[in-house]
Amino acid sequence: MRISYPSSEKVFMKGEIHPELRVAMRKITLTPTATLENGGTRLRENAPVIVYDTSGPYSDPNAEIDLAKGLPKLRRPWTEGRKGTQMSLAKQGIITHEMEYVAIRETMNCREQGIETHITPEFVRQEVAAGRAVIPANVNHPESEPMIIGTNFCVKINTNIGNSHANSSIEEEVEKAVWSCKWGGDTLMDLSTGENITETREWILRNCPVPVGTVPMYQAFEKAGGRAEDLTWEIFRDTLIEQCEQGVDYFTIHCGIRLKNVPLSQGRLTGMVSRGGSIISKWCRVHRRESFLYEHFDDICDICRKYDAAISLGDGLRPGSTFDANDAAQFAELDTMGELVERAWEKDVQAFIEGPGHVPMHKIRENMTRQMEKCHGAPFYTLGPIVTDIAPAYDHITSAIGAAMIGWYGTAMLCYVTPKEHLALPGKNDVREGVVAYKIAAHAADLAKGHPGAAIRDNALSKARYEFRWKDQFNLALDPERALEYWKTSNETGGKYCTMCGPNFCAMRISRSLEDCREDACGRQEA
Amino acid sequence: MRISYPSSEKVFMKGEIHPELRVAMRKITLTPTATLENGGTRLRENAPVIVYDTSGPYSDPNAEIDLAKGLPKLRRPWTEGRKGTQMSLAKQGIITHEMEYVAIRETMNCREQGIETHITPEFVRQEVAAGRAVIPANVNHPESEPMIIGTNFCVKINTNIGNSHANSSIEEEVEKAVWSCKWGGDTLMDLSTGENITETREWILRNCPVPVGTVPMYQAFEKAGGRAEDLTWEIFRDTLIEQCEQGVDYFTIHCGIRLKNVPLSQGRLTGMVSRGGSIISKWCRVHRRESFLYEHFDDICDICRKYDAAISLGDGLRPGSTFDANDAAQFAELDTMGELVERAWEKDVQAFIEGPGHVPMHKIRENMTRQMEKCHGAPFYTLGPIVTDIAPAYDHITSAIGAAMIGWYGTAMLCYVTPKEHLALPGKNDVREGVVAYKIAAHAADLAKGHPGAAIRDNALSKARYEFRWKDQFNLALDPERALEYWKTSNETGGKYCTMCGPNFCAMRISRSLEDCREDACGRQEA
Repeated sequence: MRISYPSSEKVFMKGEIHPELRVAMRKITLTPTATLENGGTRLRENAPVIVYDTSGPYSDPNAEIDLAKGLPKLRRPWTEGRKGTQMSLAKQGIITHEMEYVAIRETMNCREQGIETHITPEFVRQEVAAGRAVIPANVNHPESEPMIIGTNFCVKINTNIGNSHANSSIEEEVEKAVWSCKWGGDTLMDLSTGENITETREWILRNCPVPVGTVPMYQAFEKAGGRAEDLTWEIFRDTLIEQCEQGVDYFTIHCGIRLKNVPLSQGRLTGMVSRGGSIISKWCRVHRRESFLYEHFDDICDICRKYDAAISLGDGLRPGSTFDANDAAQFAELDTMGELVERAWEKDVQAFIEGPGHVPMHKIRENMTRQMEKCHGAPFYTLGPIVTDIAPAYDHITSAIGAAMIGWYGTAMLCYVTPKEHLALPGKNDVREGVVAYKIAAHAADLAKGHPGAAIRDNALSKARYEFRWKDQFNLALDPERALEYWKTSNETGGKYCTMCGPNFCAMRISRSLEDCREDACGRQEA
Repeated sequence: MRISYPSSEKVFMKGEIHPELRVAMRKITLTPTATLENGGTRLRENAPVIVYDTSGPYSDPNAEIDLAKGLPKLRRPWTEGRKGTQMSLAKQGIITHEMEYVAIRETMNCREQGIETHITPEFVRQEVAAGRAVIPANVNHPESEPMIIGTNFCVKINTNIGNSHANSSIEEEVEKAVWSCKWGGDTLMDLSTGENITETREWILRNCPVPVGTVPMYQAFEKAGGRAEDLTWEIFRDTLIEQCEQGVDYFTIHCGIRLKNVPLSQGRLTGMVSRGGSIISKWCRVHRRESFLYEHFDDICDICRKYDAAISLGDGLRPGSTFDANDAAQFAELDTMGELVERAWEKDVQAFIEGPGHVPMHKIRENMTRQMEKCHGAPFYTLGPIVTDIAPAYDHITSAIGAAMIGWYGTAMLCYVTPKEHLALPGKNDVREGVVAYKIAAHAADLAKGHPGAAIRDNALSKARYEFRWKDQFNLALDPERALEYWKTSNETGGKYCTMCGPNFCAMRISRSLEDCREDACGRQEA
């Protein structure tokens, strides 16, 4: 299970505060630009482009890969003997290894190209201390490379995998995890609900170079025999502890559902579409009691603090259709989440807020504005949103539109959606389609937000395109393999033009020939 | 070459001002909602959904299809003996057949469901008279069903097809045209540059139920032996007349490039990426003269008026990379187009304005704002825009993001982009991917703009989804075939849940079971 990218090299940047840090990234080497000058060919070098790399040791030819052993325990030396969570350490003014790591990782090209950036290790510390950013890093998941989720950092994407009763094996799930990392998934949620749920999670955790999230309610629900009413706080608590021990980095927990708000979803077109949310709502209705997740929130925080696991406040009342977007149920839950996130921070537990779902474009901004206002700057983590409901089989696209927009507005992490959403479990190709669509959305948001250095890759690719350096264009692409494959379908021309325009109609070729005209030709005419 | 959609029927609505009008649309029949009540099953009907239909006679089982004969000449009786263009007639207060046709076509479901709408035949007339909307309908293309392009109507999409020297046959191009209409293309541009260009165009026009556009410069350039400097006004003029005679409904003409503005593109990262634009720019540079397209603009209008062909003012200086977006070259051309569109209107010629291209999200709105300001409300017709350059092979997605946003801001028509953009000529599957991605963008924009009745299809599909009426969900989808195919990949469960969640974890099923709880259960607890 190896990952390789064309013309790419695994490089490592050193830390300064923690000189032993080796921050992994990917360097793409480009070919020189060739121009004809005085009858000869002159070559001008093109600087390599360094890109954010989520592939971990799988793309490092010097790393040993053995699924049975698991990945090297990168973070073990940093956490041994250390007391406190990232948040508590940040509040004490301590810059952890993880904080410096992400500061370097976020600003790869800035260092190389001398671009000013506000993202320093001290800035990271401040953001974590204030709760505006989260570094999900359970002490028991030392295999994971540090990454940061926050509105002032580059937008991240999450990939969901997981088997259900109906489907797939452990090996397949690990392979999907690595596959997701290959295409650029920043975190991975294991949503397995089937048998062997603990074993599957163990394999994924030991072999996953990115943070892993779960929805512990799924396993608790299985333990309760699939009957919501038989759930208890004790079942849930034990499940949470078990998963913390394994190393899960963040937990989606639907603590924001209050008994009084459950009826708000009754007038909806599509009721509740969150699995965890519908389970705890049913529990509330049957027992006519406040949710034990809400009532035991402080206990949940105490457990998470011990492992430095982060809480993702799940939006159980998110809309399942554009019709239900921004309704009273959704916003009532958001208010509760805003109350809970402050309680998490009081206990030094990192937390972020989940968001919709299905929202038409004109209602997207309100989601971000309200979330920022009600949740005190905690990172927002949205599922899309899908901007129209009429395209099942293309929901990676309907949702990439909403994801790009809400990312630009400030959402810190986007949960991917695959073409099979609403229809079936995604296979490997669906994961690829979903991840790439979301890398597009996240990167488009970075460009629009002006993330330092984000445009470097775009500009390098555009320059390669204009100069007919086809291979460089492919190698700089999010999916070099598919770009090359498509190009091959109809190009046998040696690369001086593409079949879109044919040999005589290539605008870029004509445009380039214009540049060889005497610079002042038009100016003179005007004078 | 027949088109069929599942559970769909071709229906026709009559006109009132012109009672002989039969406005074609597609009615999707839904199954009833079944609920258990008092031990028995109760069925509640779901109203059929009428959707905009671009498939023409190909989906009408009563129509004769014979490619050699061409489609029935629908508009011939309307135009015979009629004098003037749609715009001149509108200015005189006359509501043409075409105007009433599009008024009915735009508001299909409103009539059926009693929704108020501002879109009346009189409103259409006013919009056409003011230049805010265009009905592209050459009198020599009577096969085309009337459609309207304007910011106050539903957002349209254009599909590009066309062979180049390298590729494809006439039959393939006609098949691609029909294929584009099947998936929802509202207009079709034939961008052929190869041999048999006139014959290909003739076949497409006689068999195309949607308006056809071209870039006449391509053929003129071929006539000039592929040498920009050998072009003349006379060659261009004769080409334009020839294509008008054939029935081309709108022409992209790069009249907005002025000699003085050509050098503005010199500092760009990707120069000029418009084929027509680069050709006329080269002509200007070589001859050190103002462009003959600009100088002969009034003559161009006189030719177009005679046939009621519309002019699409081409943006030869559009940016070819996000780096070049919104630069001086692009906006200088926009100013010129604003000047030209008023001259077209003086001659009662319908016109619209082409726009970019490659624009990062934060720079999209400025495009729309400036276009509205400088071009006096003329419809905007944009190519995407692509919001990041790093995803060749996925540019239908990078551009659908920008297209949805600019459509919401007011763009009237979106030119599609396929996954093969920048790489190769699109094949049939690429056309399907491109059209569906753009139908998503256009419909998302309609929802966000609040187009009357636009949400009916979304809501019907969401309701079907919530009620596990799978077939209805597929049949209401933009691509019913693919939705069904994906669902089949892993569903053999009889339809009570999908494999995404498995049998015990279906949120919708739990949520629906909650609705059966006593309504007041929670209220009482609260009291």
